[in-house]
Amino acid sequence: MPFKIEEKIKGSLGRTGKISTVHGAIETPNFAVVGTKATVKSLTPEQVKSTGTQVVLGNTYHLYLQPGEDVVREAGGMGKYMNWEGPTITDSGGFQVFSLGAAIGRSVSKIAKKEDENTECKELIIPLMNIDDEGVSFRSHIDGSPHRFTPEKSIEIQHALGADIMFAFDECTSPHAGTKYQREALDRTHAWALRSLSAHKKIGKAGSTATELWGIVQGGREIELREKSAKIIGAMNFDGFGIGGSFDKEDVGEVVACVNRLLPEELPRHFLGIGEPLDILKAVENGCDMFDCVLPTRWGRNGTLMTRYGRMSIENAEFRSDFTPIEDDCSCYSCLHFTRSYLHHLFRAKEMLASTLATIHNLRFMMSFMEEVRSAIREKNYTNFKEKFIASYSKVKTS
Amino acid sequence: MPFKIEEKIKGSLGRTGKISTVHGAIETPNFAVVGTKATVKSLTPEQVKSTGTQVVLGNTYHLYLQPGEDVVREAGGMGKYMNWEGPTITDSGGFQVFSLGAAIGRSVSKIAKKEDENTECKELIIPLMNIDDEGVSFRSHIDGSPHRFTPEKSIEIQHALGADIMFAFDECTSPHAGTKYQREALDRTHAWALRSLSAHKKIGKAGSTATELWGIVQGGREIELREKSAKIIGAMNFDGFGIGGSFDKEDVGEVVACVNRLLPEELPRHFLGIGEPLDILKAVENGCDMFDCVLPTRWGRNGTLMTRYGRMSIENAEFRSDFTPIEDDCSCYSCLHFTRSYLHHLFRAKEMLASTLATIHNLRFMMSFMEEVRSAIREKNYTNFKEKFIASYSKVKTS
Repeated sequence: MPFKIEEKIKGSLGRTGKISTVHGAIETPNFAVVGTKATVKSLTPEQVKSTGTQVVLGNTYHLYLQPGEDVVREAGGMGKYMNWEGPTITDSGGFQVFSLGAAIGRSVSKIAKKEDENTECKELIIPLMNIDDEGVSFRSHIDGSPHRFTPEKSIEIQHALGADIMFAFDECTSPHAGTKYQREALDRTHAWALRSLSAHKKIGKAGSTATELWGIVQGGREIELREKSAKIIGAMNFDGFGIGGSFDKEDVGEVVACVNRLLPEELPRHFLGIGEPLDILKAVENGCDMFDCVLPTRWGRNGTLMTRYGRMSIENAEFRSDFTPIEDDCSCYSCLHFTRSYLHHLFRAKEMLASTLATIHNLRFMMSFMEEVRSAIREKNYTNFKEKFIASYSKVKTS
Repeated sequence: MPFKIEEKIKGSLGRTGKISTVHGAIETPNFAVVGTKATVKSLTPEQVKSTGTQVVLGNTYHLYLQPGEDVVREAGGMGKYMNWEGPTITDSGGFQVFSLGAAIGRSVSKIAKKEDENTECKELIIPLMNIDDEGVSFRSHIDGSPHRFTPEKSIEIQHALGADIMFAFDECTSPHAGTKYQREALDRTHAWALRSLSAHKKIGKAGSTATELWGIVQGGREIELREKSAKIIGAMNFDGFGIGGSFDKEDVGEVVACVNRLLPEELPRHFLGIGEPLDILKAVENGCDMFDCVLPTRWGRNGTLMTRYGRMSIENAEFRSDFTPIEDDCSCYSCLHFTRSYLHHLFRAKEMLASTLATIHNLRFMMSFMEEVRSAIREKNYTNFKEKFIASYSKVKTS
């Protein structure tokens, strides 16, 4: 079995385990670092590895447009192209097609951001008439050129990208879409899941490298649709599952629990686009095994450092002459070799090394957090760990 | 003696040797990598070191404005601040004051670039009335705030920055300034050299760390003024010399030779702001020991790769599916782990890692070039080496 559950959180759906791939193991729960265009922004693969990162997620939509999946295939796949030796994941392209591609030259507007932090991973666009039952027509966000994705095309591109884990093509709906639309979209996602599976089998038979295809549960904010989707997708012959779409922050735990109760227990579940530590905790105890989000890397580039005591805006004047590390007990490269003052200076001076050092720290923070989540589950100490973490992390950093 | 000559090029002023500092040795001839704001743009210090770089040059003007020399002093000096353990140099601030500071809100224009490549390091601005015999008043290029440098102030700032080698405060004149102005400016530079020396001695006596002060020979394009300056500056009690200002590309060798014949043979000479390999060769055989320039790092960020066969614009379409390294026989991190196709993709996608990988390669190219220059001198094979290098480097890269 590629997925092995090792320990469970008593009285909940949470568990720790291991996903095996030909490029190495992924201990779960784990956080996949986003490397959109076959690069984790501002880091070398060695720097990514130094943070404890085990798996990198590339975006099918972006790599299809640039450099093109033919180039990546010829290079030996995304991992080889970017010199990342560990496991890799590609998403289906669905989320980006709807959030980026559909917006060009059309009178669609982004859904206003909610005030909570979670929305950073959840910007959605109403897809309008670009979608039909066969697939989605969209325009490139780079040059406006027209393109079309179908489930078959998504799987074909993902096989060219050659990740260890790929996803079925799905439709991401706006959190503001009405119930009627949500139902139609969900039916399409289910039909596309079957077509993705059969395209995957066909290519697999033709001698492609061993890869896993995971199905995506959709259904927006409605429990009834989520449960319907979990039953239908969960009954298909997938190697694992993704939970996509949008949620209300306060419902995350409940919705995820409903879905995970219905999905096959023995297979892994990836909560797509989620990266806020407090959301991860809610999802872990409700049965999610994998996460990914641009949040720690994007925050890093913006000078927002993640610490055990909440977030820190390193450009603030208070750090000008602060010669301590970002976090005293952090083992990351940046904390071992540089001071808050130096990072403050690099950000103020708009130096590229600023992004590199901050991203290394944020990724080490995330990996350290996930390591502690796994240890706490193994040591049957999850609730205690969680309470302590939340009490500390929820504090606003004041100095 | 901090400088030891090891071997000379027969029949010329060229030599190989070693400068000793408390932070390690600098083998000469050598190229100092520019780390303007206490960071070599887009690289960690370990990445800088991996290229064979022995010495980093910071810019006094920039560090004075940001983060401020007080912060750098409190951090333990520029090297410690940026975690560079090797030798460091700071310039006097003179060149930047004249090229950047004097331009704000004034009707001064940059001298039009010549078509030759050398001008990249030689953009100069007419300083106008900002200069008096005491010092220079200028405005920050960041926020337009008013500042004033004197020789004493420059030396005080440089001591705070704490480099191993610092430079006397000089006046950089426009290459288009008339002879009368050149003479006045040169007299100021000589008076400022004396004041720099005495400020340096005063601070040195007050218990500053062991550092060297090098004087700067000016005189523009006029041989007579260059010789006058070399005699006057050469007779002062400096630990080494810089050759500043501007040159005609075709005169570089001749002018440098005239200056170096007059400077004390036993002390090292830094040709300021020069980095084009063909210019370096001319200057080496005419007695220069040290060089610095933003050229290899700036070219790296722009996607211009330096190779043994000339320059390569990695964004060109021809490299899209080229899965060979930048240079087959290059030992740099980028060539060992990535392909031209991947760098092409990173540059097209405007990914930060593009700058990092290209800068590593260009610095390794420069360091490898300087290593070969030193070996050729040691092995009494300089002329042969030079001819082969020029024949290969002057080729335009075609594929």
